[in-house]
Amino acid sequence: MGASRATAQPSLTDTETYKSAAAQAAADLVDDGARVGLGTGSTVAYLLPALAERGLRLRCVATSPATARIARELGLVVEELDDLGRLDIAIDGADQIDPAGWLVKGGGAAHTREKIVARAAERCVVIASAEKVVPALWPPVPLEILRFAARTTLAQIGDAALRDVPPSPDGNLIADYTGPVADPRALAQRLATTPGVVEHGLFEPDLVDDILIAGPAGVEHRKL
Amino acid sequence: MGASRATAQPSLTDTETYKSAAAQAAADLVDDGARVGLGTGSTVAYLLPALAERGLRLRCVATSPATARIARELGLVVEELDDLGRLDIAIDGADQIDPAGWLVKGGGAAHTREKIVARAAERCVVIASAEKVVPALWPPVPLEILRFAARTTLAQIGDAALRDVPPSPDGNLIADYTGPVADPRALAQRLATTPGVVEHGLFEPDLVDDILIAGPAGVEHRKL
Repeated sequence: MGASRATAQPSLTDTETYKSAAAQAAADLVDDGARVGLGTGSTVAYLLPALAERGLRLRCVATSPATARIARELGLVVEELDDLGRLDIAIDGADQIDPAGWLVKGGGAAHTREKIVARAAERCVVIASAEKVVPALWPPVPLEILRFAARTTLAQIGDAALRDVPPSPDGNLIADYTGPVADPRALAQRLATTPGVVEHGLFEPDLVDDILIAGPAGVEHRKL
Repeated sequence: MGASRATAQPSLTDTETYKSAAAQAAADLVDDGARVGLGTGSTVAYLLPALAERGLRLRCVATSPATARIARELGLVVEELDDLGRLDIAIDGADQIDPAGWLVKGGGAAHTREKIVARAAERCVVIASAEKVVPALWPPVPLEILRFAARTTLAQIGDAALRDVPPSPDGNLIADYTGPVADPRALAQRLATTPGVVEHGLFEPDLVDDILIAGPAGVEHRKL
């Protein structure tokens, strides 16, 4: 009963192979001595060993406690972003990628630190398997919100609900916006200016430099 | 050696009289049974007793632990914003008020909760003594930022520094933007979209309904 190659949806095995291929291609972009931002999630889980295997002298910053722990177990040096200041490269996954390069991130609830790290990097590389490419973004869009008056903040946003997960490493609540995402720029603007919203999971194309999409035909390298 | 009435700057005594007059005028706007948002700061310090003396049945929300404590000592009922949902009126001070109705707030480091409460109110009333009216906003603009990578966030903003005060009630750091404020809307947009910035102290005119300015000629009531 294994998935057939004839269907449009890739099998789980294909997806994992693609994630690994995109991660390997990104690891190959990292130079010796680089300061590297490490994302969070199931595609980054392939990046970390690929990066460690290269045996480079790197100074890394992690976007989540989970990434920090795994990276250190693999022998990567993980430091505080404030001790490095700027990063040469940041590599992270995405939940959705639209044709213009807009991303939805935060399925792993790490989008706030991921956005801080992406903004601090000279070059931001997104890695994904092909099924993350979508014709248009759709909900949910992850949110991080203050505990203070959280229900009132969600009511202001409308079409939003708390996610049943632990608080963020910064002590805030994780929620999801579930309304329409037809105009990502307008929605990003509205979410960014709603008081109580610490960060949202829409990443604008300006934050991203390279997108590595792995699929049946190999790894496609898009430069933004 | 008391301050002369002939100088342009009001004396301390005048300023306190004006703050009290603006606060009293705002207290008179509150209806029996109202849900009231209470700001933070030296002008709100006059509002709280003025409101308590009216003897109305009110349900209040506080924007800081200090305001909550004083309000309760005066016999006002203080509840959680999430338990009230919407507010009928919010009353708060401001550090600066420009001709278009833009405000700078957050000298008391409470601007995040103040903005959440202002947004939740049907009517937002600003109270101030006349010297808070400025021809154009100037720095500093208060910021609340995440502890994670705080120095990196401040470097991204540029012209910004941590303030030597305790963390916010939401566990974040208080800082000040000290660069130019020539275009408040553009600056507000930039600060709102900088990852790591939880909230900034620029309040747009859309947030404000009434401004009560007290000076030598009495209380001026501006409707926005």
